[in-house]
Amino acid sequence: MASKQTEELNKLYREWVAALQANPEMPLDELRRMFEQWERITGEPGGVDYIETDAGGVPAMWAAPKNCAQDRVLLGAHGGGYVAGSMYTHRKVYAHAAKTIGCRALIVHYGRAPENVHPGPVNDMARSYKWLLDQGIRSGHIAVIGDSAGGALAVTTILRAREQGLPLPAATMPISPWLDMEATGETFGTNAAKDLLVTREVIQVMAGMFLGEGGNRQDPLANPLYADLKGLPPMYIQTGADETLLDDSRKLADLARNSGVDVTLEIVPEMQHVFQFLAGTAPEGDAAIRRLADWARPKLGLG
Amino acid sequence: MASKQTEELNKLYREWVAALQANPEMPLDELRRMFEQWERITGEPGGVDYIETDAGGVPAMWAAPKNCAQDRVLLGAHGGGYVAGSMYTHRKVYAHAAKTIGCRALIVHYGRAPENVHPGPVNDMARSYKWLLDQGIRSGHIAVIGDSAGGALAVTTILRAREQGLPLPAATMPISPWLDMEATGETFGTNAAKDLLVTREVIQVMAGMFLGEGGNRQDPLANPLYADLKGLPPMYIQTGADETLLDDSRKLADLARNSGVDVTLEIVPEMQHVFQFLAGTAPEGDAAIRRLADWARPKLGLG
Repeated sequence: MASKQTEELNKLYREWVAALQANPEMPLDELRRMFEQWERITGEPGGVDYIETDAGGVPAMWAAPKNCAQDRVLLGAHGGGYVAGSMYTHRKVYAHAAKTIGCRALIVHYGRAPENVHPGPVNDMARSYKWLLDQGIRSGHIAVIGDSAGGALAVTTILRAREQGLPLPAATMPISPWLDMEATGETFGTNAAKDLLVTREVIQVMAGMFLGEGGNRQDPLANPLYADLKGLPPMYIQTGADETLLDDSRKLADLARNSGVDVTLEIVPEMQHVFQFLAGTAPEGDAAIRRLADWARPKLGLG
Repeated sequence: MASKQTEELNKLYREWVAALQANPEMPLDELRRMFEQWERITGEPGGVDYIETDAGGVPAMWAAPKNCAQDRVLLGAHGGGYVAGSMYTHRKVYAHAAKTIGCRALIVHYGRAPENVHPGPVNDMARSYKWLLDQGIRSGHIAVIGDSAGGALAVTTILRAREQGLPLPAATMPISPWLDMEATGETFGTNAAKDLLVTREVIQVMAGMFLGEGGNRQDPLANPLYADLKGLPPMYIQTGADETLLDDSRKLADLARNSGVDVTLEIVPEMQHVFQFLAGTAPEGDAAIRRLADWARPKLGLG
């Protein structure tokens, strides 16, 4: 049974859905302010410094745990449907991941839609990745992580880097990824009663905002389910069993496996969308981060 | 009329009081976890780095706004009745103050009661102050700030520094200070219906925990209303008109004035205990921080 502490995430998602139902025309800035509350679910990891920086023209934040391996980096793409979320909402959750791995995290504050439609976000992410290489960080010492929309970016950033002829990172960790711009997953129906936040309708609205007018829902850099994943680094997909987006994870795992990628798909029972936000407050959050870290450490050459 | 956004602080205080009423024997660790939510009221100031440090044996956090005056420092004492609160709960609110002033803040994670009873907290604060001097920061370039229990520390830290023969800082800013260990204020009665958080009973329990067994409620280093304030630096007291603790501010202002201290008492209409937490989310919070900063800047030799 899920721990009592996971109820805090459920409560937040119920609050958001109620606020959106009460105000279907909620202005974008109000929606974004609402999503800034995401971070209240996560406990402070402690012993981590936070330094804002300019990552090749893209705002970003270093989360630097004390005494970590400075030359190993987790490149983080936050979620929020490409329209909300920020380096602030995901400060603590990616700091937990970095601290548990024993490396730094660079959390990218990529431009969001509708101001920065596709391919804006993936280009911002790829620019940050190249900036890391320019700083002297070896590609084999970088792992990419991302949740929800950022879970797609955790894959598309690598595709974009490959297009640009850059060496690929050591690993990628899509968390509760949202990939499918056509919202075709069966779990939109089968998990509708369990998922407290994500519906097909919300996904369709966000896809429209992200792609902009005339955007191609099958563009591999927007929807990596249409991409050639051959040659991608090892991938750990971690997702909640109660998610309407569960099928996105399964499809990505199947595609990656069929393309010869070393892929692990972990479906965590009874968990909601991006339940890793519960790090520091619920055992499920800490345990999930621990499993990601245990998997990532050897990929980064850490003991 | 108070802005709609101030309702978020009211909501949080009502939640806390309801949780305490539902669970009057709430264990200390649960109470502390609950108080960690204080920070959710405050918006991210942005453009501020956060670096944990050891301030002469006391854990603390630098909040360092980009391009600020590195040699000017706001020394911050967080509130929480000496038993709760932390450098994490007050990270953003003191970062707002530092950013608006244009200096760094050192937010002290002093030991809390009951593990660290009086004079533990004031000694930790004084140690951090001395550490700043040892780092080469001039006393005239330091202002002290503190809220609630930290509002007392904003005064007692200076008294302790004086006892130790240290040069005094340039200014102090007690915010919604709690000083009176005997809880004698008339506003406990007259504001009882307006204050959503603080009651005489809560204050009495916290005073007992803070002072420990046989503690002296009139010790000037615990209760500066019994102190000799002569020679103290300029003082700006900022407090909410709806607070049960309002009389604490008035008594401090009277005592300071009668002791020849340059004192400003600002009572902000319709505001609750430590409403400055609303910085970045409500105009009342930003305006209050702005007034504190405008007052403090010339004291610190900033233009």
